[in-house]
Amino acid sequence: MAPPIIAILSDFGEKDFFVPSMKGVITGINPDAHILDISHQVPSYNIHAGAFVLNAVYRYFPSGTVFLVVVDPGVGSSRRILLAQFQGYSFVAPDNGILSYVLSEAEFPEIRHVTSDHYFLPQTGRTFEGRDIMAPVAAWISKDVDGDKFGELIDDFNRFPLERARISEGSLTGRIMYQDKFGNLISNISAEALQTVDPDFERLQIRASDRDIQLVESYSSVEKGRLLALIGSLGSLEIAVREGSAAEETGLKPGDSVVVEKKFE
Amino acid sequence: MAPPIIAILSDFGEKDFFVPSMKGVITGINPDAHILDISHQVPSYNIHAGAFVLNAVYRYFPSGTVFLVVVDPGVGSSRRILLAQFQGYSFVAPDNGILSYVLSEAEFPEIRHVTSDHYFLPQTGRTFEGRDIMAPVAAWISKDVDGDKFGELIDDFNRFPLERARISEGSLTGRIMYQDKFGNLISNISAEALQTVDPDFERLQIRASDRDIQLVESYSSVEKGRLLALIGSLGSLEIAVREGSAAEETGLKPGDSVVVEKKFE
Amino acid sequence: MAPPIIAILSDFGEKDFFVPSMKGVITGINPDAHILDISHQVPSYNIHAGAFVLNAVYRYFPSGTVFLVVVDPGVGSSRRILLAQFQGYSFVAPDNGILSYVLSEAEFPEIRHVTSDHYFLPQTGRTFEGRDIMAPVAAWISKDVDGDKFGELIDDFNRFPLERARISEGSLTGRIMYQDKFGNLISNISAEALQTVDPDFERLQIRASDRDIQLVESYSSVEKGRLLALIGSLGSLEIAVREGSAAEETGLKPGDSVVVEKKFE
Repeated sequence: MAPPIIAILSDFGEKDFFVPSMKGVITGINPDAHILDISHQVPSYNIHAGAFVLNAVYRYFPSGTVFLVVVDPGVGSSRRILLAQFQGYSFVAPDNGILSYVLSEAEFPEIRHVTSDHYFLPQTGRTFEGRDIMAPVAAWISKDVDGDKFGELIDDFNRFPLERARISEGSLTGRIMYQDKFGNLISNISAEALQTVDPDFERLQIRASDRDIQLVESYSSVEKGRLLALIGSLGSLEIAVREGSAAEETGLKPGDSVVVEKKFE
Repeated sequence: MAPPIIAILSDFGEKDFFVPSMKGVITGINPDAHILDISHQVPSYNIHAGAFVLNAVYRYFPSGTVFLVVVDPGVGSSRRILLAQFQGYSFVAPDNGILSYVLSEAEFPEIRHVTSDHYFLPQTGRTFEGRDIMAPVAAWISKDVDGDKFGELIDDFNRFPLERARISEGSLTGRIMYQDKFGNLISNISAEALQTVDPDFERLQIRASDRDIQLVESYSSVEKGRLLALIGSLGSLEIAVREGSAAEETGLKPGDSVVVEKKFE
Repeated sequence: MAPPIIAILSDFGEKDFFVPSMKGVITGINPDAHILDISHQVPSYNIHAGAFVLNAVYRYFPSGTVFLVVVDPGVGSSRRILLAQFQGYSFVAPDNGILSYVLSEAEFPEIRHVTSDHYFLPQTGRTFEGRDIMAPVAAWISKDVDGDKFGELIDDFNRFPLERARISEGSLTGRIMYQDKFGNLISNISAEALQTVDPDFERLQIRASDRDIQLVESYSSVEKGRLLALIGSLGSLEIAVREGSAAEETGLKPGDSVVVEKKFE
């Protein structure tokens, strides 16, 4: 039988006792679990960045994976802890919207308010529920405890509005969603949306930060140091510099606009 | 049978060959081991910070866990390598005081000077004993080799004095022990010590860096950006800013004083 | 049977979706694999630094380990993907020279151009072949699929010239190859090469950045803060400052020269 996988995403960084405490708790409950890090470098309290990274990776993990998601600015408040399950995936996370992207694509998710405190650590405080509540719950789920043991189904969980690219009079307006470590800028303009503007991708005019950016097939299609746009590894329009930083080159950052139109000769 | 856990703490960072060399060595000796990182971002050579983090996490791991602790400014000198065992836990570490906090609470620890070099790598140098000596020893321990095989019991190992909060004429004086990545400042003033000043926690006056700081129940008890104090996840007084950095807000750092008194109307 | 080990080296950093996507893919194909990180902090696109770190660690892993190496500035171009196998080790990497050091010591390596796309993800793009091609290939190798299933043997793969220290008229000239996180500067001057200059190591004069540097046995042979040279943990001459940074102290960096001569009274 395949060992259970628990994948952790947080804004805890790697320097402190936060992440290894959670791993210790998991290991004590389910020593067979394979614990993998998604990232612990989500910017502090940044639910949107966490939601983006989670959505970018979860589908590459096998069904059965338990995701422990702890970006939790509301820790200690009355915000609830959620268990969301669909297609064999389980997500344990605070009810603050961080599952918004993941749930936007989920078919028939079962979402529960986690209340069964016999699955929590015996002593729980109000400052580190990742360790005291969410990690043990994730570990018990990885031991195949049924979801309905953890709490009641709810449907009033928090989601933030998804920012989708908008099309208007042949012009597609999206925005930068994420900046990766290379300085690549990933937008919310999908390849499918681009096709509605120009099915052949041959006369697309991409404009951001007052620059016209050429759409190419891969980073290596241009000279080193040149600005480019391409369909990135998440299936959406990405602005990049070959072996350089598009963020530095353009000054663009998450939230900024990208406009795509069809060129006319 | 549960797979053995080896948890590693070091000041090696994650960029170089240090940590993966140790993991390779462990894996060669005990391929079944689950290797977990505590942190490799202990500030270089900072034994006190390493001791603090180790003490904050070890109790959350299950009995049987082997801790490999390599913050080792004295590498290559005559400083000894220790194996400390208690309550099913094993710690392999240089004899430089880094186990001071952990051992202060241990019941009947067995502490040995590791000398049995047939458990070391065949070729050991004098610059990376984490890889050549400590990692293989940890791996062999995780294979259930008895502690007494590694060397003689000793009782003259190094410890540094524990800095405990002091109470004098109703006033409790402690200090900041650790700054986490959020800028939270964790003191050595335990909840129990606070109770000796005011059993109800209702008239406690907390003063640090010339500021009076309000004791609340959780980060979310105050507005965003406000300074607060609370009993943190390690059971001691912590100074924080909600979704901000108390270190930046106050200028306080590890070593600085915190004074708690009882207010009188 | 020992669980398979997959060790990953990249320049992806730990903040983004890159590394966990690859781990998810591996886990989906071979859930029994133990996935270990070598480092993801290779400087972006720096094939030489990646090659150095890989060579420093691979020999400490047990035979059977699969190395997934993704420092890949040419992603999406016609550069090939390689599978190199020797002494039970397997390396999956782009054909850009990153295996140069490892292969320089390998006996009878079998090197293949990976072309069997039924081992790739069903949908592969041109921007993240680490996830779409290299990770699944590494996972299938860890399931004991024979190397010859992945593609044809080749012998025209890319290697960069190895920079070895040169001896001329009793003077040995090498260079700094790597700077570690402590600021230690590791050269390409082996202990064996030093012996050709002075078999006793007693009259060696080490000169770099216009400074004469004393050869000692370990960091702790000198006072804190003092510059020193020693035979480091990789078996080559290393310039260091005890509990300090030789890089800061000397201004030396990778590529700079180190000269060793024999002193005459």
